[in-house]
Formats: sequence, C-alpha cells, structure tokens
Amino acid sequence: MNLKRYLPVLQWAPQYDRSQATSDLVAALIVTVMLIPQSLAYALLAGLPPQIGLYASILPLVIYAIFGTSRTLSVGPVAVASLMTAAALAPLAEAGTTEYVAGAVVLAVMSGIMLTVMGVLRLGFLANFLSHPVISGFITASGIVIAASQLKHIFGIQASGQNLLTIGQSLIQSMGEANIPTLFIGTGALLFLTFARKQLKPLLIHSGVGARSADIITKTAPILAVLVTTLVAWQLRLDTQGVRLVGVVPSGLPELTMPSLDWELWQQLAVSALLISVVGFVESVSVGQTLAAKRRQRIDPDQELIGLGAANLGSGFSGGMPVTGGFSRSVVNFDAGAETPAAGAYTAVGIALATLCLTPAIAYLPQATLAATIIVAVATLIDLPALGRTWRYSRTDFGAMLATIVLTLVHSVEAGIVAGVALSIGLFLYRTSRPHSAVVGRVPGTEHFRNVLRHDVELCPKVIFLRVDESLYFANARFLEETVMDLAIDGPELKHLVLVCPAVNLVDASALESLEAINVRLKDAGVRLHLSEVKGPVMDRLKSTEFLSHLGGELFLSTYEAWQTLTDRKAPLEEPV
Amino acid sequence: MNLKRYLPVLQWAPQYDRSQATSDLVAALIVTVMLIPQSLAYALLAGLPPQIGLYASILPLVIYAIFGTSRTLSVGPVAVASLMTAAALAPLAEAGTTEYVAGAVVLAVMSGIMLTVMGVLRLGFLANFLSHPVISGFITASGIVIAASQLKHIFGIQASGQNLLTIGQSLIQSMGEANIPTLFIGTGALLFLTFARKQLKPLLIHSGVGARSADIITKTAPILAVLVTTLVAWQLRLDTQGVRLVGVVPSGLPELTMPSLDWELWQQLAVSALLISVVGFVESVSVGQTLAAKRRQRIDPDQELIGLGAANLGSGFSGGMPVTGGFSRSVVNFDAGAETPAAGAYTAVGIALATLCLTPAIAYLPQATLAATIIVAVATLIDLPALGRTWRYSRTDFGAMLATIVLTLVHSVEAGIVAGVALSIGLFLYRTSRPHSAVVGRVPGTEHFRNVLRHDVELCPKVIFLRVDESLYFANARFLEETVMDLAIDGPELKHLVLVCPAVNLVDASALESLEAINVRLKDAGVRLHLSEVKGPVMDRLKSTEFLSHLGGELFLSTYEAWQTLTDRKAPLEEPV
Repeated sequence: MNLKRYLPVLQWAPQYDRSQATSDLVAALIVTVMLIPQSLAYALLAGLPPQIGLYASILPLVIYAIFGTSRTLSVGPVAVASLMTAAALAPLAEAGTTEYVAGAVVLAVMSGIMLTVMGVLRLGFLANFLSHPVISGFITASGIVIAASQLKHIFGIQASGQNLLTIGQSLIQSMGEANIPTLFIGTGALLFLTFARKQLKPLLIHSGVGARSADIITKTAPILAVLVTTLVAWQLRLDTQGVRLVGVVPSGLPELTMPSLDWELWQQLAVSALLISVVGFVESVSVGQTLAAKRRQRIDPDQELIGLGAANLGSGFSGGMPVTGGFSRSVVNFDAGAETPAAGAYTAVGIALATLCLTPAIAYLPQATLAATIIVAVATLIDLPALGRTWRYSRTDFGAMLATIVLTLVHSVEAGIVAGVALSIGLFLYRTSRPHSAVVGRVPGTEHFRNVLRHDVELCPKVIFLRVDESLYFANARFLEETVMDLAIDGPELKHLVLVCPAVNLVDASALESLEAINVRLKDAGVRLHLSEVKGPVMDRLKSTEFLSHLGGELFLSTYEAWQTLTDRKAPLEEPV
Repeated sequence: MNLKRYLPVLQWAPQYDRSQATSDLVAALIVTVMLIPQSLAYALLAGLPPQIGLYASILPLVIYAIFGTSRTLSVGPVAVASLMTAAALAPLAEAGTTEYVAGAVVLAVMSGIMLTVMGVLRLGFLANFLSHPVISGFITASGIVIAASQLKHIFGIQASGQNLLTIGQSLIQSMGEANIPTLFIGTGALLFLTFARKQLKPLLIHSGVGARSADIITKTAPILAVLVTTLVAWQLRLDTQGVRLVGVVPSGLPELTMPSLDWELWQQLAVSALLISVVGFVESVSVGQTLAAKRRQRIDPDQELIGLGAANLGSGFSGGMPVTGGFSRSVVNFDAGAETPAAGAYTAVGIALATLCLTPAIAYLPQATLAATIIVAVATLIDLPALGRTWRYSRTDFGAMLATIVLTLVHSVEAGIVAGVALSIGLFLYRTSRPHSAVVGRVPGTEHFRNVLRHDVELCPKVIFLRVDESLYFANARFLEETVMDLAIDGPELKHLVLVCPAVNLVDASALESLEAINVRLKDAGVRLHLSEVKGPVMDRLKSTEFLSHLGGELFLSTYEAWQTLTDRKAPLEEPV
C-alpha cells in the first residue's frame, strides 16, 4: 500500500496493455514534436545554452512517470519557471557563462530537494496560500515581462533587464541597431504562429478535419516555423548578415552533473528556488487536477510534490534547469490520447533521439524564431480581463492581485509574488482575527435564539447570550476578550454572560487562557460567565483543565435551559424586560 | 469624538478632582520608590549606563499619561525588553560605549515609530499571532537567561553571552576570579529580597498590618536593599576591595537627543525593534486589560499602540531606551490606589527629582545589589509548570511553546520568539487549510440532515450532500476541490452533489474559482453541482458573477427541498438505497 503511494507507477504499470501503449506512443510523438522547439526556446528565455532545455526534457520525464500521480501531465521546461530562473541567475553571472549554467543546476537540485521534502512532510497545503488572484496576476504579469524580454531577438538587438521598465529602456536605446533580416524572420514567424493559433484550426475544421486533429495539427505549427526558418537561414547563409542563430549545439546525451556545493551560492538561490518550486507546483496541480477530473481520475498533491521534486533532482543531476508541468503541452498530451505516464517516458526517448541526431540541424535555427514561439505561447497566459472580474467580485482580492502585477512588472518576479502572498496572508490573518459572533435573544414563545440585530427577539438586561460562530484559537482569542468585556462594560445591569458555543470545534491553549481571563475579569466586574451548547470533544478537553472548576457560572446543555435558569432566577419572564 | 480617541487624556482630565489627585499622588510615591532601583537595574541589564534607565522613566511616563488608555499601567524600562535590547545591541558595539548608547536610542525611536504606525493603521490584531503558549514560553525562557546573565554581578566576575550556553561557559571560565566582598553583598541582597518577597508579607499581616499595605511595604524592599548596601559600600570603601559600584552618574535631567540617522544601523536593528515593540505591546495590553476589568474600565488596544509608541519616541528623544508597561509596577500602582494616568506623570516628577538630587548618592551603590533585585524580580516570570499544563491540554501548542523556550535558551531571544511565532502561524495555516465539512444524510422522517459518520441517516447513492462548516477562501479552497472530487470518484453512481452552505459567510475570489473548477470537473465526470442554504450576502455576490449561469445544477433554499427534487427525480424514496 505504502509503496504504491510513493511509487504510483506500481498502480498502472502491472496492467499496462497494448492498447494503452499505442495511445501513449501516438501522444508522445505529438508532444515530442511540440517539445523540441519549446525546450530550445525556454532555455533561450532562461539565458541558457539550447541543449540545456533538451537535457531538462529527458530524465525528468522518465522520473515523473515513476513518481508522479497525474496520468497526463507533461513535465519539462515551462515559460514562467524559465523567466524566474533567468531572474534568479541574472545577479550572479553573465547569461550563458559556466557559472550561470552551474547556477541553473543548483536551482533545479535545490528546488527538487525542497519539493521532495515538502511532499514527504505533506506540506502541500502551503501552496494554498498562493491565492488564485495572486497566481493569476503573477502569470499575467510574467507573460508580459517574458514577451517584452523576447522582443530583442525579434529585432536582432542586444537588450537586458528583469522588469518592464529596464527592458523597455534597454530596447529603446538599442533600437537603432535593429537587424532587418532578423526582423523579417521574427515578424514572419510571429505572424505565421499567430495565424496558426487563431485561424488555422477553424480553417481545418471547415475543410473537414476533426476538431481534435485540427487542434493537434495547429499545435505542431512551431516545429514547422523552426524547419522553414532554419532552411531559409541555411540556404541564404543568414549568419553572415547578422542574424543570430542558435549555433553549434553539442550532440549527445546529457552526462551526470554534480551540482556546485558552494554554500553561499545555495543561500543566494534559496528564496528563488522556493518560489520556483511553489509556483511550479501550484500550476502543475491545477492542470493535473483539471485533466484528471475529465476521466474521474485522482491526483495526490503531496505525492505530486515528490514527483516534481524527483523530476527536478533528475534535471539538475543531468545538467538541466528547473522543470514543472506545462499547461499547453499537458492539454495536447491529454487530447492526443495519452493514457498513462508512460507517454511522458516515450516523449523522453523522442527528445533523447533528437538530442543525438538533430542537433547539427539546429545550428542554423534563428533565435528570432524561438522568440516568436515564446511570445505566441505566453500571449495565452495574459489574462487582463481577470483584473476587472476580480475588482467587481472582491476589493481585497483585487488589491492583492494588483500589487502582484504591478510589482512583477516594475520591480521583479520575486518581489511580485512575495508581495502578493504577504498581502493575501495579511488580509487573511486580519479577517480571521475577528470571529463571526452575535448577541442572540429568544424568539418569543420558542426555544430558538437568533441574532438581536436581525430578528425581533426577547432580551433580558441581566443576561447576555453571545453566540460564537467559529473555533476559538490564538488568532481570535483577544478579539473575544474585547467583545465580552465591552458587553460587560456597556451593560451595567449585567449579571450573567452566556457563551453559546455550538460552532466551536476547538479551543486552543491561547483561547483557554482567554476564557480564564474573561472568567476572572467578569467575576471582578460582578458578572458570572456561563457556557452553553459546548460540543463533546471540546468539553472533554476543557474537563482536563482547571477552567471548569474556576468557572463563575454553569454549563448548560441548551441555550434555552440557560435562559430558563438565569432569567427565572432573579427576573421571572413575566416581569417587564 | 475623534480627538478624544487619539488623546485619551481629554476623557479624564476635565473631571479630575482633588480626591483623585490624592490617590494618584500616594500611588506615585510608592511606584517612584519601586522604580528607582528598577530603572537602574534594567539599564544595567541592557548594558547601558544607569542614568539611561532613569531617563527612560521620565518623559515616557508623561507622554503615556496623555496618549495611553489604561488608567493604571506603569510604563518604563522592563526586564524582558531590556534583555532584548542587550541582545539587539551586543553584535553592534561594546556595552556602555557611545555607539551602544546611540543604538539604544535608535531602538527606542524605531520601536516608537513602528508602534505608532501600527496604531494609526489599527494593526493591533497582528499581536494576536503571538499566541499565549509562545509568549508564556518566551517570558519563562527570558527570565532564565536574565537571571543567568546577572550571576556575574553577584560573583563580581566578568562574563558575557546572549544565551544560557554562552553565559554558562563564560561564568565557569571566570569563576576563579570571584570577588568575596561582592559575593557577600550579592547573596545578602538576594536572601533579603527573597525573604521580603516570600515571608515578609505573611509576617506583616500576622502582625496586624492590612493585606494591601503589607503588599506595598514588601514591594519597597529593593529600595531598602539599595540604601543599606550603598551605605555599607560607602562606609567600608568597598570599591578599593574590588567591588564594582555604579560609579559617578551625571546629575541633571535628560537632554533632547537626536537619534542617529545611519540607515544601515536602522536596517540592522529593524527586526529587533519590531520584536521588542510587539512583545512589549502584548504584555502591556494583557496587564492593562486585567487591571481595567477590575473596575469595569476599557482599554483600546489600537490606541495603546499609539500611547506606547509615543512613550518610546519620548524615551528615544530624551536619550533613553525601549520602554513598555511593566507587570509588577502596574499592579503596585493599581493596588496603591492610582485612579488616573496622572499617577504616571507624578511618578515621572519623582524620578526627575531623584535624577536631579540623588545621583551623587548612587555612586556607591554596588552592582551586585541591582543584579539581586533583577534576579528576584524575574524569578516570578519563570513559569515552568505551564509546560506541563500546555502538554496536557494541547500537543501542538506545547510544540510551539517548547520550540520557543529551547531556542531562546540555547540560541537567542530573537530566534526563540521568531520560531514560536512561525510555528504557531504554520500550525494555524495548516489547521485552517482543512475546513470542517461533513457528508450529511436525512434523519428519517424529518427535514433534518446530519453527519453520516455520527448518525443513522437516510442516503441516496445518486446524490451526495456535503455540508461545509466554514467560510470558503483561498486557504481551504483547494481542500474543498479535493474533497469534492474524491467523493465524485469514489461514488461511480453519483449524479448530483449538493454543497450545503449554511455556515459559509464568505466566498472569496479563490474559492469562487474553485467552485467554477469543481462545477466544470463534476460536469466532465457526469455529476451536477447544486447549492443549498446559501446565505443572502454570499448569494448577492455570487449573482454578480457568471458562476450561477455556468452552474450545472440548481440553487435550493433548503436541503430538504434539494433532497425532494433530486432523489424523487430519478430514484423515488421507496426504492432500496
């Protein structure tokens, strides 16, 4: 049982049959064709040599097939993680240098360790605190920054920067050096890919191609762009005209790479590795769950952490870069019919073959083509209308989203995500520090008690019934103290205060201290504290303490019983209240 | 109204009468006598010259009387904040040097700014996250560290260290150099003060002194110890025998001090200032609330932030050190009959007079006497049985408490408090990420629905009723997604899933996205999502979105209505279920 939890491959491999294998092979072929240009492009985006992208698309896929729980998630380099990799490494070294490449390996290994540890400790819940508006704002802003950062390749100029301001400034300064042949290739590829994405599919469907096949054909457009522009560049010897090409890529499979053990480097990259890990995890799980649901399958988020962690370790030790589950590739994999994670392993074989045989051909691939594929891919990530939707729905959520977007655009990806998370948690802590509670009164002639602010209920000035609608713990314990004492001070005739606790599932040690303090302070003020409708498990724990023996008042099973006892005792119901 | 909120002095000063003035003056006299040795001792503990303690006991008290909301809180130097000051400044400079003293001023000013800003922004709720077990463990551990750090003065040796390990090691190394006359004075003072605290009060009461007077007389024991040992040291010229005395203290009132504007220094001290502020605030509010309740008075925590912030600003600009409300002094002030914050202002006058006239006499005061008063005072802070109580009540609370104590003892006060808070918040986030929810079934023959795990209820395999007992927001949205999808996967016959939402007070943007995702995924799995008992305000917000138009199922006012509609539709109740 436990082995199957940690090795999900054991759940499907024993029943693996020929029909599944055929489906997986077809899907793997299509994903391979899609992944070759993507892996090259995302390495370029991360500031790494192109073969690193290929390396990161071999071993990690095989490892994820063993440890991952999603049947159809396609793991490998993705746009946002590549941008975050570039942002993390930029302060450390010049892009493309040996130290820079070594930094990417450390990022992948550290990210792998963090994800695996989080998985083993079952800390997947931490990802919850990346709230939806924050992650959505972050991805939109990242998409904009990525697109902006690729414009230099389209224009064939040198430019740098990690945010919209610095990139923009750098682009404007170098615009005079734009290379016309590069610009032709770049805009040509951009137009073709945009056409493929927007119009090719309807056209194909119109010509009688099935919707699913049309979709898959459309997704292979990037490889076509790569082939055509490479041929053109080779035929016209465009490198002699200033067009930047990918250049000679070392052929052969990745070798075992030992990450640098420079402790200072690890410390410098730790926060970045954590952010890359968590953002990648959240995105992977979201894609994985959406796809799994379509077939009533299940993914286990804590095991996903282990799967992605192991994949990143594999990526690092084979000289790669941080990897995670990609949205568009996974959807293609699913639509192309992948049935088991074996499809991912077959894709790895495809990429390995490409690394062995196709690298000489890649030398003439223009960087502008890769930049165009990146821009068209990330355009789908940008969701500006979400800002309006969130504004209309919730101002606090909008605030967190806007802070994330603005900081990502004008400062850095890391500042953006950290600000968003901090703001979300801050707002959350603020909200939870004020528990829902209400003074209740008796609905005349019944045994029911309702909020005095919303219903016409019977009251007694000597007794207040305060219903607490949440568990009591340190976050709201002080608020309870204040609420109760305010009631006591505002009601000079008050003799009894009944805490009505049907919704209290937990009283932690801080709240217990607060109850003790409330009890003592009320006693000092001449008011007795009573409890009613305390749940069984809560009562069991209270009984293990001295609180109940200190309690000035009584315990009532029902609020009505408290009403009868306390109001009858000194003020019969018939008296004017 | 608003002016009265920010200047609580306006609430009591206009009605201030002669009888209140008499009470306040008596209380101020007693507190002054108690505060003189305390302010000297806490300056010693913080590694500062003795007059700094006096300076911090003048202007801050006057300012707090204007801005504070507690009638009886006694503000000034306290043990824990002094220890934290020493810990913050130790890495920066040698104790007692000009830079060290300047650092204390920056700490006070920064702490003042932080508290005031938190007060104006009404961020008092942030103090909630210092849970009771953490603060209690922190104070116990700080008390132990403080007592250990003062042993060097009792033995008359040089020793250093910021935690129990380094202090202990340092003490053992220097033990050979112990000074016998110092040891006599130190142990003598310790024995006398312990006797005064433990046995004097019962003795006095036994001799017919009233309980309150006996208590107040007992509290003046430190000043007696100071007087006697100073006289002895002066008569016997003990300084010639190696007894360390307080030495010449500059006479005169504090002067206006401008804090250093060294940005790097501010950055280095920022975390320490924040911790000192928050710990001090939590302690002050707790003492203030306890005392206020005894007279059915009210304190306003957000205004307390402003009061303490202004007091710290006053302390900094008059060359002092961080101040906050002291527990024992406030209790004495209250018991001695203080009725308004004017008592604090009178105390300030008393300390100012002492600073002007008594400083020459202080020169012969042995440091061992001050160390003895500190040790006896902090002994009351140490509450080790609380560990056992917390262990019995809650293992998670115990974990946070133990981590705080251990890290404070073996590493540093700052590591201790940060670890405690991080662990508390982590455990809290974990808890909130799993909302209370239950699959419910119909109590046969009624319109009521109860948890299937606890009650014998009617079920229908085509319909699941999931009751959610908490608001839905980003922290638990993902858990809801998983819970719902698990139910859908585990029930192959399932056609309808009803979310029963009577306890949902809020659906934030993340939870809305999750509901959208759940709706789509359930549709993909052939299950329709319905909602029942949605509260009015929640429904109003949902209506502003497109969620309701996407919803696969229906909205039901009551769960019974959903039961009738969904179970009748395809499976009459008479059928076997």
